[in-house]
Amino acid sequence: MIFQVQPIESRRIALEGERWSSDPAIDVRGYTDLYGNPCVRAVLQAGRSSFSYDAVAMCPDATEDVDEEAPECLPDALPDATLLYILPSRYCLPDVLGNEAWSRFGGMAPGYRRVQAICQHVHDHLTFQYGSTNAWTTAADVNMSRLGVCRDFTQLAISFCRALNIPARYVFGYLPDLDVPVDPNPMDFAAWMEVWLGDRWWTFDPRNNIPRKGRVVIGRGRDASDVAMATTFGGPYLETMVVRSEEELGS
Amino acid sequence: MIFQVQPIESRRIALEGERWSSDPAIDVRGYTDLYGNPCVRAVLQAGRSSFSYDAVAMCPDATEDVDEEAPECLPDALPDATLLYILPSRYCLPDVLGNEAWSRFGGMAPGYRRVQAICQHVHDHLTFQYGSTNAWTTAADVNMSRLGVCRDFTQLAISFCRALNIPARYVFGYLPDLDVPVDPNPMDFAAWMEVWLGDRWWTFDPRNNIPRKGRVVIGRGRDASDVAMATTFGGPYLETMVVRSEEELGS
Amino acid sequence: MIFQVQPIESRRIALEGERWSSDPAIDVRGYTDLYGNPCVRAVLQAGRSSFSYDAVAMCPDATEDVDEEAPECLPDALPDATLLYILPSRYCLPDVLGNEAWSRFGGMAPGYRRVQAICQHVHDHLTFQYGSTNAWTTAADVNMSRLGVCRDFTQLAISFCRALNIPARYVFGYLPDLDVPVDPNPMDFAAWMEVWLGDRWWTFDPRNNIPRKGRVVIGRGRDASDVAMATTFGGPYLETMVVRSEEELGS
Amino acid sequence: MIFQVQPIESRRIALEGERWSSDPAIDVRGYTDLYGNPCVRAVLQAGRSSFSYDAVAMCPDATEDVDEEAPECLPDALPDATLLYILPSRYCLPDVLGNEAWSRFGGMAPGYRRVQAICQHVHDHLTFQYGSTNAWTTAADVNMSRLGVCRDFTQLAISFCRALNIPARYVFGYLPDLDVPVDPNPMDFAAWMEVWLGDRWWTFDPRNNIPRKGRVVIGRGRDASDVAMATTFGGPYLETMVVRSEEELGS
Repeated sequence: MIFQVQPIESRRIALEGERWSSDPAIDVRGYTDLYGNPCVRAVLQAGRSSFSYDAVAMCPDATEDVDEEAPECLPDALPDATLLYILPSRYCLPDVLGNEAWSRFGGMAPGYRRVQAICQHVHDHLTFQYGSTNAWTTAADVNMSRLGVCRDFTQLAISFCRALNIPARYVFGYLPDLDVPVDPNPMDFAAWMEVWLGDRWWTFDPRNNIPRKGRVVIGRGRDASDVAMATTFGGPYLETMVVRSEEELGS
Repeated sequence: MIFQVQPIESRRIALEGERWSSDPAIDVRGYTDLYGNPCVRAVLQAGRSSFSYDAVAMCPDATEDVDEEAPECLPDALPDATLLYILPSRYCLPDVLGNEAWSRFGGMAPGYRRVQAICQHVHDHLTFQYGSTNAWTTAADVNMSRLGVCRDFTQLAISFCRALNIPARYVFGYLPDLDVPVDPNPMDFAAWMEVWLGDRWWTFDPRNNIPRKGRVVIGRGRDASDVAMATTFGGPYLETMVVRSEEELGS
Repeated sequence: MIFQVQPIESRRIALEGERWSSDPAIDVRGYTDLYGNPCVRAVLQAGRSSFSYDAVAMCPDATEDVDEEAPECLPDALPDATLLYILPSRYCLPDVLGNEAWSRFGGMAPGYRRVQAICQHVHDHLTFQYGSTNAWTTAADVNMSRLGVCRDFTQLAISFCRALNIPARYVFGYLPDLDVPVDPNPMDFAAWMEVWLGDRWWTFDPRNNIPRKGRVVIGRGRDASDVAMATTFGGPYLETMVVRSEEELGS
Repeated sequence: MIFQVQPIESRRIALEGERWSSDPAIDVRGYTDLYGNPCVRAVLQAGRSSFSYDAVAMCPDATEDVDEEAPECLPDALPDATLLYILPSRYCLPDVLGNEAWSRFGGMAPGYRRVQAICQHVHDHLTFQYGSTNAWTTAADVNMSRLGVCRDFTQLAISFCRALNIPARYVFGYLPDLDVPVDPNPMDFAAWMEVWLGDRWWTFDPRNNIPRKGRVVIGRGRDASDVAMATTFGGPYLETMVVRSEEELGS
């Protein structure tokens, strides 16, 4: 198995008290994938296994940065490392959705507000519904069916950005409901996107579409196929999975 | 524009006499993409531009290595860096073609010969036809239409390998017709694949399906979307493109 | 609007006490579509409308006929009118699923039992889940996602039959839960299929996969696109729809 | 085999000197399909067969009717028999292309000129290229790839019409190059469409996009899947097919 559950430590996020536990004991071996994400590999023994990861992530007491004046870069000004994020990928299809992207957003002034308009459109165009999409569902499918989960909202917005030559990458992580309870369902992993404007990546979340505190990034990639929570070989059966992400106050 | 035309220097390939020329003069700026491929960026001026790249590549006087005893790795034995190459990507769809991969090749003994069987099947199943596929055509489409170019042969074989958890990556380069004239059409860029078996990558070419001398790699990636010869912004019109790849004897 | 809600009267089904009611009063105009199905057209006024159709359908007290010895026809022996039902249609894709159909079922002895094997396979391969498919979902999509509703079970089985040159048509109707409660959800319209074997159409139901009493056919066609319960123009909003199908005892 | 090669006789087209010939002699049996098209069925013997159909079709010396004032019908005014031709079918996807249809043509005044605008757009958007599409290619695929043959031009224009609730059906027939040589390639079967406006079907040809003399209809249907020149069972190999359609002067 390969797990992607560890937060990425950064200037904004420090980890404490990381703890892997498993029953029966399973050795995990860490590595970093091509995108720089922390991953672990493990071999499960035959029979039932349980596996857990715990940590305290120290986050800033602030929502993500916003700068409505941040400009888009002309293609020649894009840093080399961002160019990958304007290409199509398994689920993000700027090539298929290009006509629509240009007809909807091509006439708007470039910059941060255009990306906001993309997020607003996706937020309004899609309805959140568990079970409405599956492992084959692309951004183009979701654009037609108008149903999806956070993964799908994100991938559709990414597709529109890339079609306009705005680098956009898929982000996957923990997003606790702090003072903004959005979802009646139990906490799950969340997906949002980062978009290159000016000289840095900015966080946008077309699913929730409001600034949020407590985003803890696990992985970044071209789309959901790059950052699976668990990749399995040999067909093990997943009995249950629980993701808990809660505020630890007073610390 | 972004160009990927420079061969990758390696233990097998040395370059001499590299020369970029352009009219009007265009500055090129080199960089290396996420996969380690050499790329250059350039800004064309308004109006007509011509652009060329020349080099002499010193190749071994030998066809690619073959070892019919090379084993497949169990998933846990795969090096970290190979894991990316069992995932689906824009055009290679092991998720869609998985049932067919397992029903055709799942019962065969793992190893080099199984990959040969995949190549033989793809070689026989598809017919080469210029113009039969386009920029939206996936390996699943080609599997139905049974028509494609070297790009499509390669992406279908890659999809089958990945479905079986065999890492496979897309390779794009020059492949001169030395003593083995295969194609009546003028030389074009060629595509083939590399597959991880044992402790290294091996070259397979489901299009030609015979060992060849003179493979000169330009780029490697997950599929054709990662290694485009030219990526353009702003919609320039391509008047003509000529690729010449000839043996320079006596040197 | 166009409604398809009236049962087709036949040797097996007689109707009594048919009653259309609407508020405000709406004129309906009946016609018969290309497949011979009874349809009605109506123009709703601006504002809220309610519309209902009631009838008592007299059904035989017997499950559908079964004859495990019924033979498949060679193509030349198929009646002219059945030939339409081996072609692909919007959602039934024998052309896409042909390879799989032949590899799974091509080796079996032709006849009724082969169609049973198709139904059994579809029944086992798919899991029933409300909301898992949408108006763009084809039989090929469902074959991958393995989730669907009765519509999808039926269209996948139809696709496999057609790929084997067995005429199969889509049937849409009422199917009360008499003594066989299958579904905890409130009654909905149901879909099943009819397959031409020997000299007649036979009923198969890959969703329930057991003989049932009380099938009342509303329409038949190539797939679900031909027999919509309601087709609307001008985008009216559907507030609620209730389908009730209950046994009227003692009569 | 099923052949659709006989012209439909009508007020405009009379046939003379119809002659089937085959070697070895093959019995043909005529029937009329669900759409009213003449078809024949035949059983080929093992071994090589040749088969031909000849006739003289008397056509008016006039191009198809044009009436730029012909109105679109409101949905309620559409005749019952035209309603089938606003639904999606195997290759014509008004459901997938609906957003684009409404954004491109939704703001235009309804009527004949709007259908002309659709034809003009399709004519300009696509480039004719033999071999660029295959038996799985839908109107949505062609809209992206921008390459196709007359079949594809027609199916894309039909999809846009249907999305706007304008009934449109696929027509397949002979279209000799009389005084308007359009195509350097040998004559093939041709495809165009008929659209319901006012109180009748009108001919539109998005491929040629100019009025033509000598259209001889063989079949009409929802799309190309309904009107195949030849449908075969048992996998016979087609060695050659020649379609000749020439003007017979002086008669």
